[in-house]
Amino acid sequence: MSELRHRRGEGDGNDKAETAGESDHVDVDSEEEKVLEEKYVDELAKNLPQGTDKTPEILDSALSGLSSRWRNWVIRGIFTWLMIGAFCLLIYGGPLALMITVLCVQVKCFEEIINIGYAVYRVHGLPWFRSLSWYFLLTSNYFFYGENLIDYFGVVINRTDYLHFLVTYHRFISFSLYCVGFVWFVLSLVKRYYMRQFSLFAWTHVALLIVVTQSYLIIQNIFEGLIWFIVPVSMIICNDVMAYVFGFFFGKTPLIKLSPKKTWEGFIGGGISTVIFGLVLSYLMSQYPYLVCPIEYSDSLGRMTMECEPSTLFRLHEYTPPQFLQPLMKIFGREKITMYPFMIHSLALSIFSSVIGPFGGFFASGFKRAFKIKDFGDVIPGHGGIMDRFDCQFLMATFVNVYITSFIRTATPQKLLQQVYNLKPEQQLQLFYALKESLENRNILNMVP
Amino acid sequence: MSELRHRRGEGDGNDKAETAGESDHVDVDSEEEKVLEEKYVDELAKNLPQGTDKTPEILDSALSGLSSRWRNWVIRGIFTWLMIGAFCLLIYGGPLALMITVLCVQVKCFEEIINIGYAVYRVHGLPWFRSLSWYFLLTSNYFFYGENLIDYFGVVINRTDYLHFLVTYHRFISFSLYCVGFVWFVLSLVKRYYMRQFSLFAWTHVALLIVVTQSYLIIQNIFEGLIWFIVPVSMIICNDVMAYVFGFFFGKTPLIKLSPKKTWEGFIGGGISTVIFGLVLSYLMSQYPYLVCPIEYSDSLGRMTMECEPSTLFRLHEYTPPQFLQPLMKIFGREKITMYPFMIHSLALSIFSSVIGPFGGFFASGFKRAFKIKDFGDVIPGHGGIMDRFDCQFLMATFVNVYITSFIRTATPQKLLQQVYNLKPEQQLQLFYALKESLENRNILNMVP
Repeated sequence: MSELRHRRGEGDGNDKAETAGESDHVDVDSEEEKVLEEKYVDELAKNLPQGTDKTPEILDSALSGLSSRWRNWVIRGIFTWLMIGAFCLLIYGGPLALMITVLCVQVKCFEEIINIGYAVYRVHGLPWFRSLSWYFLLTSNYFFYGENLIDYFGVVINRTDYLHFLVTYHRFISFSLYCVGFVWFVLSLVKRYYMRQFSLFAWTHVALLIVVTQSYLIIQNIFEGLIWFIVPVSMIICNDVMAYVFGFFFGKTPLIKLSPKKTWEGFIGGGISTVIFGLVLSYLMSQYPYLVCPIEYSDSLGRMTMECEPSTLFRLHEYTPPQFLQPLMKIFGREKITMYPFMIHSLALSIFSSVIGPFGGFFASGFKRAFKIKDFGDVIPGHGGIMDRFDCQFLMATFVNVYITSFIRTATPQKLLQQVYNLKPEQQLQLFYALKESLENRNILNMVP
Repeated sequence: MSELRHRRGEGDGNDKAETAGESDHVDVDSEEEKVLEEKYVDELAKNLPQGTDKTPEILDSALSGLSSRWRNWVIRGIFTWLMIGAFCLLIYGGPLALMITVLCVQVKCFEEIINIGYAVYRVHGLPWFRSLSWYFLLTSNYFFYGENLIDYFGVVINRTDYLHFLVTYHRFISFSLYCVGFVWFVLSLVKRYYMRQFSLFAWTHVALLIVVTQSYLIIQNIFEGLIWFIVPVSMIICNDVMAYVFGFFFGKTPLIKLSPKKTWEGFIGGGISTVIFGLVLSYLMSQYPYLVCPIEYSDSLGRMTMECEPSTLFRLHEYTPPQFLQPLMKIFGREKITMYPFMIHSLALSIFSSVIGPFGGFFASGFKRAFKIKDFGDVIPGHGGIMDRFDCQFLMATFVNVYITSFIRTATPQKLLQQVYNLKPEQQLQLFYALKESLENRNILNMVP
C-alpha cells in the first residue's frame, strides 16, 4: 500500500564522511560499546514507522510529467493551500470549532509521538502500555481543560449544583486519577522489560509536557481574543512557507548542519516576509470586534459573548516615529504614523516566530534524525505527519501566552472580580469592607474613579 | 576506598528463572535483537555509578563483631536517628532553614538522577551537556521559586522599584531564559550523538518535573503552616521505618515482585503504625501557633509573621462518633470525643502515605532495577543516596498540596485582597465600585457582615 523509504539508506554516504571527521574530538566509548550501540540503533530503526510520501492517485497521475523536485513542490503547495483554507473555515466556525480542532490536533500529535516511542522500545506485546499512555493523556486533559473551564466559566458552573462539586475538588479528582495511573504503571512492571517500561513512561510524560500543556496554553490564548490565536499561527505558517520559497529559489548558504535543506537565504527571506505579513495581518484584523474581543461570560446576557468595546490595543493611535526613521517618513510626506498599538506587539511576535520559531523545527528534525525516521506520520501528503506541521507552533503558543501575561494582561480588575464572585456572599462582604477601609486609609476613596 | 557491589551479580540466578517463566507470553522481538539489547544493557551497567555501602571507619570497627544483617540494621538505625534529629533541628530553625534545606535536597536529588542519565547514555565527553542540565535546573528554579515569592510577598516586592520589574515580567524572563537553553541545546547537537542527546534532554526534563515542581509544591505547603510540612514528612518517615521494622521481625508474605524485600506484614504494620502516629503527632502539634499559623507578610508589622488566631482546624471541637464506634466509646465511658478537626485531615494524609506512598518507593526501586544500579548515591550510610530516602516524599508533597487547595483553602478573601492591592490605585477603586454595585443589586450589602 505505501512505499517505505528509510532515511538511513539515503544519507549513508554523507553519514560516514561526517562521523569520520568528528571522531577525533569526542571519543570516550570503548570500541566494543560503539559497535554494539550502532548495531542496536540500526536494529531499532528497522522497526520504526517511517513516514511515507503517499500521494492521492489522481494527483499522482496528473503530475506524472513533472520531475520529482517540482512534483513535490506542487503537491506541497496544493496541500498548503488546502490547509490554509481549512484554517479560515475554522476561524469562521468560531472559538468552539477552534478549540475542538486544537484538541484533535493534540491527540493526533500525541499519537504520533507515542507511536515512535512504542517502536523505539518495541513494547507492542507488553500488556497495558498502550492503555496507560492514553489514560495519562485523558487524565492530563481532564486536569488542564478543567482548569481552563473553571478559570473562564467558574461563575456559571458554580450555579449548577452537581458541577459545583467538580469545580471545588477539581485538582483532587485529577490527582486521584493520576495516582490510579501511577499505581497501575508500577503494578504493570514486568521484570524483563523494566528499562523499556521506564523509558516509555518518561517518553509519555515528555509527550504530555509538549502536547497537552501547550494546547492548554493555546486555548487560553483563544479566550483572550481570536486574534491572539490567528496571528501567531499564521506567522509560523507564513515563516514556514516563505522560508521554503526563498530557500527553493535563492537558497545557497547552508544554515545548520541539523537540517541540510535549510539555508540562510530562506531563514532571512522568511523572517522579513513574516514581519511584513504580521504587520499587514494585524492591521487588517484589528478592525473586527469578532477577532479582537476576549471571550467572556456575560452575566447580563446569560451566555458567552465576543462583543466588546475594543481595548486601547485595537484603537488607532498616532505615533511619532523615532529620529532614525524620520528620513523614511519624509519620502511618504508624513510626520506621524497612525496605527493600532497591537501592531507593535505583532512586531515582537513576528520576530520571535522567525528567529526562535525555526528552532522548534530544527529540534523536531534533530529528533527525527536521532531515531532515524523520515516524518512523524503520513497524514498530509507532501508534509508528513501532523507533528511535522505543528512543531514550531508549540513553542510559539507558549511565547504568546507568556507575552500576554507579561505585557498585556497587567490590568485585571475584571478577572479579580470574577474570583470575588466565586466566594460566599458573606466573604464577598468581608472583602468589600476590608477593601473600603484600606482605600479610605490610603485616601484613595476620595479620588474620582 | 569503597567496595562496589553490582546488583546484577547478586540476582542473576533469580533473573534467569523469571525470564524463562515469562518469555512465552510476551515475545515480539527477533532473537538477534534480544541478544543485542541484552549485551547493550549489560555493557551499560558496567559504567553506571553503583551505590556503595561505605561506613565510617569508627563504626565499622565498633560493629565488627556483628553479623552483616545486624550490622546493617544498627548502622541504618543510627543514621535514621541522626536524620530525625537533624530534621527536628531544622524545624527549630524555622521556615527559612526548611526552605533552604528543600532547595539543597532538590539539587542533590537532581544531581543523582542526572548522573545516572549521564552514565546510561555515556556522554561524559560531549560538550555542554552537563552545563545544559544545570542551566535548566537554574531556569526552572528561577521560575518556580519566583512564582512562589510573588504569590506570597508580591505586595512587599512591588514596593521596591527595581524588583517591581522582576515581578511584572517574571514569566517573560523565565521563558526567555528557557528559550536560551533550548536554542543552546539545538546548537549543541552533534550528528553522532543525536539519539543520546535527545534521550538526555528528555531525562533532564523528567528529572525537573519530578524534583523541581515537587519542591515548589513543598515550599507552598510550608507557607500554609509548618504543620502541613512536618506531619506528612514524618508520616512517610514513620511508614518507612515501621514497615522496615515489622518486615524485619514478622515479614513472611512477599508483597510485590518489584521489591522482594517488601512484605505484606511490613506494609500493614507500617500502615497501622502510621495512622496512629499521625493522630498522636497531629494532636501534639495542633497546640502550637508556631506550627499551625500560615506564614504571611503582615502589613502593620512590616515583616513576616507566624502569629495568628489559629483557624477552626486547630481549635478543639466535640464530635459525636458514628453509631458503629459507640460500643468502643462505652469502654472508655464517654459519649463524645474532643479533638482537633485537623486530626481528621491527618487521617486522610496518613492513609495516603501508607497506601499510595509506598508506590513511590516501588517506582524508585523499579527504576533502580531497570538501570541495574543499587542505590541512587552513597551520601547516607546504610540508606544510599538522598533520592533513596525521598522517593516517597515527592508523591506525598503533591498530595498534600492538592489536598490543601481542595479541602482547606476554600475561603480566601485575604488572598484575593492581596491581589487587589497589587493593582494600580485607580483599578482598585474601579473594582471597589463594581463590587459595591453588584453587592447592592443582590441585596447583600444590607446584610450584617
